[in-house]
Amino acid sequence: MAPLSDPAPGGGRGGALVFVGFMGAGKSTAARRVAAELGVAAADSDRVIEERIGEPIEGWFDREGERAFRALEEEVVLGLLADPDARVIALGGGALASEPVRAALAEHTVVHVEVSAEVAWRRASGRGRPLARDRARFEQLFADRAAVYAAAADATLPATASKGAARRATPALEALRAARATVGGRPRMVWADAASGSYPVFFGRGLHAAGFEHPTDGRRLTVTDTDVAAALGVSRAIAIDPGETAKNLATVERVLGELARAGAERGDLVVALGGGVVGDLAGFCAAIYQRGMRCVQVPTTLVAQVDSAYGGKTGVDIAEGKNYAGAYHQPAAVVCDPALLGTLPPAELAAGYAEVVKTALIAGGSLWAHVRRGGPVDDETILGCLRTKLAVVAADERDGGLRQILNLGHTVAHAIESATGYARYRHGEAVAVGLLAALRLSGADALRAEVAELLAAHGLPASFGGASVDDVVALTERDKKRSGGRVPFVLVEEPGRVTPGHAIAPDALRAAVAEVHEG
Amino acid sequence: MAPLSDPAPGGGRGGALVFVGFMGAGKSTAARRVAAELGVAAADSDRVIEERIGEPIEGWFDREGERAFRALEEEVVLGLLADPDARVIALGGGALASEPVRAALAEHTVVHVEVSAEVAWRRASGRGRPLARDRARFEQLFADRAAVYAAAADATLPATASKGAARRATPALEALRAARATVGGRPRMVWADAASGSYPVFFGRGLHAAGFEHPTDGRRLTVTDTDVAAALGVSRAIAIDPGETAKNLATVERVLGELARAGAERGDLVVALGGGVVGDLAGFCAAIYQRGMRCVQVPTTLVAQVDSAYGGKTGVDIAEGKNYAGAYHQPAAVVCDPALLGTLPPAELAAGYAEVVKTALIAGGSLWAHVRRGGPVDDETILGCLRTKLAVVAADERDGGLRQILNLGHTVAHAIESATGYARYRHGEAVAVGLLAALRLSGADALRAEVAELLAAHGLPASFGGASVDDVVALTERDKKRSGGRVPFVLVEEPGRVTPGHAIAPDALRAAVAEVHEG
Repeated sequence: MAPLSDPAPGGGRGGALVFVGFMGAGKSTAARRVAAELGVAAADSDRVIEERIGEPIEGWFDREGERAFRALEEEVVLGLLADPDARVIALGGGALASEPVRAALAEHTVVHVEVSAEVAWRRASGRGRPLARDRARFEQLFADRAAVYAAAADATLPATASKGAARRATPALEALRAARATVGGRPRMVWADAASGSYPVFFGRGLHAAGFEHPTDGRRLTVTDTDVAAALGVSRAIAIDPGETAKNLATVERVLGELARAGAERGDLVVALGGGVVGDLAGFCAAIYQRGMRCVQVPTTLVAQVDSAYGGKTGVDIAEGKNYAGAYHQPAAVVCDPALLGTLPPAELAAGYAEVVKTALIAGGSLWAHVRRGGPVDDETILGCLRTKLAVVAADERDGGLRQILNLGHTVAHAIESATGYARYRHGEAVAVGLLAALRLSGADALRAEVAELLAAHGLPASFGGASVDDVVALTERDKKRSGGRVPFVLVEEPGRVTPGHAIAPDALRAAVAEVHEG
Repeated sequence: MAPLSDPAPGGGRGGALVFVGFMGAGKSTAARRVAAELGVAAADSDRVIEERIGEPIEGWFDREGERAFRALEEEVVLGLLADPDARVIALGGGALASEPVRAALAEHTVVHVEVSAEVAWRRASGRGRPLARDRARFEQLFADRAAVYAAAADATLPATASKGAARRATPALEALRAARATVGGRPRMVWADAASGSYPVFFGRGLHAAGFEHPTDGRRLTVTDTDVAAALGVSRAIAIDPGETAKNLATVERVLGELARAGAERGDLVVALGGGVVGDLAGFCAAIYQRGMRCVQVPTTLVAQVDSAYGGKTGVDIAEGKNYAGAYHQPAAVVCDPALLGTLPPAELAAGYAEVVKTALIAGGSLWAHVRRGGPVDDETILGCLRTKLAVVAADERDGGLRQILNLGHTVAHAIESATGYARYRHGEAVAVGLLAALRLSGADALRAEVAELLAAHGLPASFGGASVDDVVALTERDKKRSGGRVPFVLVEEPGRVTPGHAIAPDALRAAVAEVHEG
């Protein structure tokens, strides 16, 4: 992943939309669809090269060699990137190997069409591409280039998205292009793909202060809490009381009433500006107001920015359980602005760190490697976490299987929150304790010690009080994820290998809970 | 449509599932899929005939003539229907022309795969079927046979349904087959197809008393109101207060709490036993309990049986508006039992008549012809209304266009209910008045007079009091269906020609409301 301190694009105009990605990702197709949506023509470096050499690339490449091809490609690509009339450009898979090309891309909005090595091989080898004749060499090339694309990418589209994704993403790509011209830093966009709807996630320091808005049709009605309203100086908003105790149906009724009195219509947008409670509650209000209006999530806490703002789970608590009244309602967009975290009390920021560790354990790889180094949460960590969350949700929207891994540490955490009346611990604090219990249940003792150290360094608790072991064990067994009476647990084999659905013996559960009990 | 007094099937065993329908409907495919789901082989009369004659039907038919073919077909079909081992049978499109075949079908569960004339022609003419060479003759044959299939059908599957429909409908077909053996009368099943999910609608006098249940997996938790509980002698149920005033978020919270305390899990079923209020509220509770569990609608009022139990609209009122908190949540099944209407107070039954007239105006054709004859509402009318509602919802699930026609008369009706505090008029009474206003706005004066007479004969009001014309006009303009500030009206050109989205001049609206005002 690119360090986020990359220089901002020069020129301040957002440049062209430039599609890059590995061979077989579908860059050319995506570029054509976006260009058609914008009413312009798409330029394609491979086609320009073929016109220049007067024959298909494959034969010329085999005859003249890769070096000659790269020189020609660089010349053609630099020409396209310098053309002020080019609005949409697709580049060949190897074009980013050139340093001058990478430098020229800084002037443009680079769209990475992401593909898996498996799908890329199937597509590219089927077309007889010169570099797709040897599987091992292909896989090595894929690994090498993945980092290059990721570093260059301003926006990411999944190659696995349904056919209409490029078309639907076009307004968001244009919004990103415009934001690059007006907002400092380097805003990004990740296209999230879920069964019930796809949406853009905008990520960038300063987006909120710059007044970034997407989508732009429909009236925007902001729902926030009084703390966030005060911290950000928001005056025209529906403001609820802060904290989990306000996350109930009485507050829902109040918000729905205010939406109605403001004349909200089905085509309008709720903007959920706040942490997990605001996001869950405002998202639920949007889901049910007149049977559904759109919601833009603008998360202001670390928990919300790395986890709860994505995936469409909304809801409120009832006396009998947390999130017992809710709906799946994918956001119309998420605007994740790390600058908003500056308004948080330190304890609130720390609480979010538990979800960061959870997500890094799920992701493994470079995100876990980055997080285990410790230190404060940086932009790279937040972006890595949100990508992980989006990837898990894309694979399983409704908790049927894989998505359950996001509940790592949460089964015991929910029980602790419930047993202590949602008053003693922040959600993230309970998750910290729950993670340690889950790692004990996983038998991952060395990892548990490392995680305990990371959590402690961020001031998070390693144990709970204010409720008995019996209470927490009983409430865990009543957890709403149970099915057919069994409580499935999420366990960690090692970072990157997290699996759901494990049955746990009552004795083992009691021992793991007792270990994280203060008493 | 068949009179519902047809003799019950003999033998009391439900017989085989016999697929009938016009050529090109896809009977053979549907039969094969259902048979595969049941783990048996499907018999196909056309295939048996071809084995017998040793050549494709087309050539033999052309050479020997239709008369010889029908004699052969009758012999083959009667043989299949008499085979006690045949579980699933597909019959050729013309087989039901034979009186002995129709008589033999009474022993079986007949599944009509419904197809439009347009689709049937496209499919059958493309295959060179002997009877699909002349379009005009084809259309005449289609019209003639439609009534024969409808009369014979115990179950209806739409040919336009997605590929998996026959497979998904299999358990419901088996439940119907079993019900035919154990329940008196002649139970039917109509497969409802909506974008967000398909489900069976079971229709039959006595189904409830016979303990009919579908689906059968998951615990069943009944939500009803205290009146229905008393009338039907229901003891183990979550009972809310009767009437629109209980349709609010406080009641939702109570019901969710009772579901939680009863240990309801996501795989369980809410059974909504009652009228429109119970159906809307219990359906909404099911939609949001732990972000969604299934709901079986068992409508006990005429309004619910002909209209509100189908289509997945659920919700409750808030102070600012009716149904302002809600969700689209298709039922898992609807069990419509006209015998339940016997428990209704006469005024409640009468109120439902307004929705019957509305639905008949939308349907036109044979349903309107039947309803305009007046007299009490019979089973045939209820079945016709529910089919109409399902057809409209199948075409447009979310109020985008066509479904708006179901709001015929409701724009003014909702305003009257709201202006009179939901206390003075039953919903159906307000709809009666709203229908008359809509017919005036439509300029359909003769039809308005005829409808006024029908409504009056059922004791429904022709005018409203308790609120001013100004109030009702103002509330109409705040109607939640407005979009971009315009209130679209549903107008009637003639029965069967009802269209949504009409702009109405303020003066015309005021005049139409004033005409139905008591003052």
